[in-house]
Amino acid sequence: MMYTLYDFLDSGNGYKIRLLLAQLQQPYRYVELDITRGETRTPQFLAKNPNGRIPTLEFEDGQCLAESDAILCYLAEGTAFLPTERLARAQVLQWMFFEQYSHEPNVATPRFIMHHLPADHPRRAELPQRQERGRAALAVMEGQLSTRSYFVGERYSIADIALYAYTHVAEEAGLELAPFPAIRAWLARVAAQPRHVRLLDRPASR
Amino acid sequence: MMYTLYDFLDSGNGYKIRLLLAQLQQPYRYVELDITRGETRTPQFLAKNPNGRIPTLEFEDGQCLAESDAILCYLAEGTAFLPTERLARAQVLQWMFFEQYSHEPNVATPRFIMHHLPADHPRRAELPQRQERGRAALAVMEGQLSTRSYFVGERYSIADIALYAYTHVAEEAGLELAPFPAIRAWLARVAAQPRHVRLLDRPASR
Repeated sequence: MMYTLYDFLDSGNGYKIRLLLAQLQQPYRYVELDITRGETRTPQFLAKNPNGRIPTLEFEDGQCLAESDAILCYLAEGTAFLPTERLARAQVLQWMFFEQYSHEPNVATPRFIMHHLPADHPRRAELPQRQERGRAALAVMEGQLSTRSYFVGERYSIADIALYAYTHVAEEAGLELAPFPAIRAWLARVAAQPRHVRLLDRPASR
Repeated sequence: MMYTLYDFLDSGNGYKIRLLLAQLQQPYRYVELDITRGETRTPQFLAKNPNGRIPTLEFEDGQCLAESDAILCYLAEGTAFLPTERLARAQVLQWMFFEQYSHEPNVATPRFIMHHLPADHPRRAELPQRQERGRAALAVMEGQLSTRSYFVGERYSIADIALYAYTHVAEEAGLELAPFPAIRAWLARVAAQPRHVRLLDRPASR
């Protein structure tokens, strides 16, 4: 299966997929869309993902799958990156839904506001509340990691990939990681996994 | 297995679990916590779910599972409510992540602000932006349902349960459903499923 990944290089949501595909040694076609210029809101792209967001994965037959964590689950099925045991699988999902609901809007979104919007943009007013909630999400992660090496089952999984993507650049969202030693140790463990790639490593396969 | 469900009756996230448990004819213990009085932020409850949120499902051995859509996936495994085919399963997850990221904060949260906070609460300032995004999420759903009876595979699944929970009370969030005829027809199909229960039906089993 040759996949096509529609993505934006600086997106942590897209990076989750690039990281897993690299670790699966799965080649793919990479198509970059500039989310800051509305390239995900064209009629052509909305036909692939009506919600107009990257990452979106396209199959050879033209079918598409959206939502970064759903794509991770699809690609990880039957591999070492997703447990087979029923409760462990659900715990992986628990951390992925935590990521999308409690973490991403409060870590990724402030980073986007600080990185991609002008310094006088009205959305900067959202930063204090989002950052406060971001620190709360990091505190929940710190608690989980204080007695564990990885989020689920003492094994690196897509739950770790999902949470690593924006946590490792949390300081770019104005969120200091110094108060979270268990998170910092886990970030180092994730970065040391075989075939790790970095956020801005442009995929070789185009 | 006798489950204990920690929940708040007016929560659509909790309602998802109550609806699926009813349709699975699975008895359970029901423990209500008042989220408006901080009852999910006690040390006792934070030991069950460090993120301090309902719904949380407890197993007989004391293990807990949080995040409504992860709980749905756990309970639906091996039943007619979750497809077995790999891409269809991922599409169910796609719609559940859509629900938590693009829909819930913009349908459930404005409903909470309008229903559970005083009329002069400062969070009312969030309503216009959240409602605008809520209408965008409803438009995405309308597009999907304009050519389909259910979200995935022409069959009622936990993707429908996840999206029904707050969509059927969207008008309580100030979001009119009149412009969305495909959504209204789908709401009627979901409500006509065998063993359907309503949001405020208090579980018989305590």
